Formats: sequence, structure tokens, C-alpha cells
Amino acid sequence: MSAPPSTSLPLSRASVLTAQKVVTPLVHRTPVFTSQTLSELLPGKNTLYFKAENLQKGGAFKFRGASFSLSQLTQDELARGVCTHSSGNHAGALALAARDRGAKCYVVMPNNSSRPKIEAVQAYGAEITFCEPTASARASTLASVQARTGATFVPPYDAVNTILGQGTALIELLEQVPEPLAAVIAPVGGGGLLAGTALAADGTQVRVFGAEPAGADDCAQGLREGKRRVEVRANTIADGLRTPVGLLNFPIIQQKVEKVIVVSENEIIEAMRLMWERLKIIVEPSGAVAFAAVRSKDFQALGINGPVGVVISGGNIDLSKPLPWTDTTQ
Amino acid sequence: MSAPPSTSLPLSRASVLTAQKVVTPLVHRTPVFTSQTLSELLPGKNTLYFKAENLQKGGAFKFRGASFSLSQLTQDELARGVCTHSSGNHAGALALAARDRGAKCYVVMPNNSSRPKIEAVQAYGAEITFCEPTASARASTLASVQARTGATFVPPYDAVNTILGQGTALIELLEQVPEPLAAVIAPVGGGGLLAGTALAADGTQVRVFGAEPAGADDCAQGLREGKRRVEVRANTIADGLRTPVGLLNFPIIQQKVEKVIVVSENEIIEAMRLMWERLKIIVEPSGAVAFAAVRSKDFQALGINGPVGVVISGGNIDLSKPLPWTDTTQ
Repeated sequence: MSAPPSTSLPLSRASVLTAQKVVTPLVHRTPVFTSQTLSELLPGKNTLYFKAENLQKGGAFKFRGASFSLSQLTQDELARGVCTHSSGNHAGALALAARDRGAKCYVVMPNNSSRPKIEAVQAYGAEITFCEPTASARASTLASVQARTGATFVPPYDAVNTILGQGTALIELLEQVPEPLAAVIAPVGGGGLLAGTALAADGTQVRVFGAEPAGADDCAQGLREGKRRVEVRANTIADGLRTPVGLLNFPIIQQKVEKVIVVSENEIIEAMRLMWERLKIIVEPSGAVAFAAVRSKDFQALGINGPVGVVISGGNIDLSKPLPWTDTTQ
Repeated sequence: MSAPPSTSLPLSRASVLTAQKVVTPLVHRTPVFTSQTLSELLPGKNTLYFKAENLQKGGAFKFRGASFSLSQLTQDELARGVCTHSSGNHAGALALAARDRGAKCYVVMPNNSSRPKIEAVQAYGAEITFCEPTASARASTLASVQARTGATFVPPYDAVNTILGQGTALIELLEQVPEPLAAVIAPVGGGGLLAGTALAADGTQVRVFGAEPAGADDCAQGLREGKRRVEVRANTIADGLRTPVGLLNFPIIQQKVEKVIVVSENEIIEAMRLMWERLKIIVEPSGAVAFAAVRSKDFQALGINGPVGVVISGGNIDLSKPLPWTDTTQ
């Protein structure tokens, strides 16, 4: 059996463009929103272009990486299916992308995952194996699923194809905006989206920034210390950003991202509420982190004079619960 | 002073096309959404194309009618400003459209209007005069504002230009969908949107349907009885649809709309929740009524075999309150 061709693609803008050609017929070309009101709230009054990946299939940018990863599998591999471990958006995205390709999908989920996320993965036809909510239980359960099925592991962020796929959101955004962007900002958890965005911007005039919750700021800390932190003690409402930044992802961010801006829980919730009220779209906490960062003094101090792209990473939120700004128990 | 040219436009598809040319540079070309999941929930599995006027400027289709109405005023009239009475989306839309044109806007609002709606109108720079929440107080207060300012009254639905402006949403939708629509469905309150939609579809193959809450079904009743009901005892969560259908609007609907489908409060709330969860956009109760109707047995019994356009009328909702499906006090 030959290795999937994917492993040979270099981590470069050219590869992101290749990925873009592949995923264009598979993914939603998500809309780009502007809001005069939101732009004018900023001291610098930069025009903001919001790339609405919350409106992507599966409700998050993750569908891009999953679709591209699947596209790079051989027929043999596809026939055996794909697997992953995830309690979040990647599981749903992979399940959906696999269904679109007629491939089987096996997902290992911690047994404390939220019901809507479990139901979404089930609705997309994936087979779930539950495990204890620890990293070692995840890994060993996934290994046994792989041994049983022969399915290919599609990692949530720490993989070349995942990173390249996520980078296609910026390529699309650059095609959609009517003027050159001065900067783009994307949230960072595992770093698939931010590393992909940085690769996609490589060699352009677009400055790239990351945004991270103070309650899970391992990437910002690692950048300050010049060394990736391998663990994070996450305490943030932004549940998509609680993972430590990946091995492949960190050096790309180190080389190509100008700064990772850290925001507080209150800033995240305020940004999220403004986006719901003004853009009229459903943004999950992680999806509001980039806009929260744009509103921060740290970002405004950069003196960026021009339009800014803001990536809204996802919109998967449990709507049966109180909204965070009305939730007094939080 | 010459009469505004507006009064001479006939109520026809050609006039809606004229309005479309005028408003295109003024309004958002709102996105059109599809959802495989939502389409497959239907027995007929019709592809649904959701026209997202909740993402229109001001958060509702009303901005179209307001913009077109303003465009038809003389310079003299513009200089004196515009006025209206409204507790809802029309007030915000007119205030915003007037601000865009640099014209003054005077809004008469009942003194029990909700705070977010008052704040929106104020934020768009309109001058508010409060009155008692009765039809006669509204009319007399508006008359005194007009006497004092010379402002031109822009009615919320019962006016030629308002109707023509609202009809442009369907013209846009027809340009955006990749296949011919078999039908389109829009909610009916005062009937500006539905009458405009019916005119816009005139002479095409698109069948036109209305959707109305059972708690304010004066239009459906009037159609059955062959006579417009001039009053409605509204009791519905769909606050944008509580007004009786207008004088100009009713005969257009009578002649050109195949059926107005009536839905219950539960059906509205269920449809709204599905749209929030699946389309990831914020839809107000009125904005979910057309989709609720599409899901009903009455609509499915029509046996429509083809894609259906569903107009999402607006997304203005008080997000500080519990969502209707979690609100046990409702």
C-alpha cells in the first residue's frame, strides 16, 4: 500500500492553494459580513471583514481540514474509513465529511461530552466509542478502534493536511473582500486554523495575528518563552480553544504570526454578544475570540491602518442553556 | 411643489424591477442559505433556499421599502425629513435609511415599546416622540409631528413604494438561486413583504404562498371571507405580524397569492429553534413563520415538486431575555 500523497505536500502557501482547489466543491463558500456599527466601535475605525465559518458545513471551519484530509486518502484507505478523538467540532466535521464521501467514520469521545455534540456526531452517521475523559484513555481507545477497523486517523489540528485545509478560509476571504486586507486575525487552540491562515498569508502583504483566551494562553506564553508549552490548564468558556498548540503548528505560528493577543472571559462574552446583536449570526464563544482581540487595547496599539479580516471559527453552542450574558451562575 | 414621482409607479413586476435597480447600491445583497438537514426533514425533501433578510441592514427586509421610499422623494421633501409611527422594525429601517441619505427622521413610538427597539431607533439618529399605545394616539401624534416639521410620512406597509421596495428581496433571490424556484413563501403581517413578493413573481413560474400565525390570522380569514378584516386581535410571539393586512396589500394578495398558511405558536418556536441550530443565524419569531408553514401538513399537501424559496423576514430579538424554547413563563 502506498503512503497517502498528502504526506508529501510541503507546508507552504502553494499547498494551501492546492487544498483550496480541492475543497472548493466540497465546502460552503461562507459569506463575509461587514458592520458599520461594529467597525465604528473601534478607535481606529478599521473596516472589519468577518469570515463566517460558523456558517460552514458542520458549523465550523473544521470541515475544511477534514474534507481536505479525506480527499488525500487512497481508495483503500477510504474503504476502511477514518477515525479521530474529539469532544468538539472536529468530530462533527469529520463525520460529515466522511458521510459526504460515503466513508465510515469512528469517533472516540470522552464520556462527559455534551449531548448536542454527541447527537450531532450520531446524526452524521459516525460510530462513537466512549472513553474516560483523559488524554491517555483517548489515545488507547483510539488505538484499539484503529486496530479493529484499520481506519486512518485524521488528527484535529496537528497534521499537514488539516493545517492546509484550514488555511483555505483565508484564501477564500482574500477572494471575497473588495480591497486588500492590512491584517487578519484568527483564534488559536490547537493551532490548525492559525497556522493554516499564516501559511495562506505567506508572501502577501497581510499581517497575521492570533487571538487566545487568557484562560488557555499556552500559545502566547510559549511564544514569549520561545518554546511550545505541551500542556495547558484551560479555564475558559471558549471550549474550542482549550487544547495546547500542536507540534507542527507552533513553529509555523512562531515564524509567521506577528503576535498572539490574549483576551479575558468578559471580553469574549462581550464580543460574542455584540456579534449576535449586530451580525445576527450565532457565534460560539471560541468564534468570538478574534473579534474580542480586535477590540482590545493590545490590538489597537498596533496602529493598523486598513481593513482587518476577522475569522469567526464556529457557531456550535448548546441553545438549550442560558446565553452567557444572561447566565448568572457563570 | 410637485408630487413625488413615486405615486405614479404602477403596482407591477416592472416597477419592482425598477425599485431593484434603485435599491441595489443601498441595501445588503443578503446571502441565501441551504441546509441539507432542514430540507431532508420535509416529507417532500424540497430543496429550501432561505433568503436571509435578517442579515439586511437594520436586521429586517424593512430597509428595502424604506430605502426605495426615500429614493422617490424630491430634494425639498428630503430636506424636511421623513416620519412614521412604528414600534418595530420599520422604525429602525427608516431611521437608518434616512441617516444614510443625510435626512432627518421622526418616529412616533408607543410608550410601551421595548427598550432595544427604542435604543436602535435612537442609535440611528432619529428623533422619537412617545405616545399612548393606541391607534388614535399614534395617528394624532404623527399628525402633530408632521404639522411641526413638514416631514413626509413613510408608511410601514400600506404604500406603493413600500410594497415595491419589499418585493426586491424576491428579485434578488431569483438571481441568486442556481435553479428555478417552484414556489416562494413569505410571512404576512401588514402585507408589504407578501404583496411585494407576489408582484415580483408575477408572470414567472414561481407560485407564491403566505404564512401567518394563527394568533393573528386576519389575512387568511379575510381571504376565506373574500373581504379584508380591518382589525386583528393579535396574540402571537411573532411581534412583527400583529398588524392587520393593509388596504393596498390585501387585493394584491387576494389576486396573486395562492394560499396563506396558518401556523401555531409551537410550530413557530420549533421552526425558529431549528433555524438557530442549523442555519446558525438569529431569526426573530416572525422570521421563522414562513419556514414553520413550509413544515406544516397544509404546505406538504400542496405536493410542490421543486425548490422552495423561504423568506426570513428579520432577526431583531431582545437577547437579554430567555430564548422562547427555554422560557417556561411563556
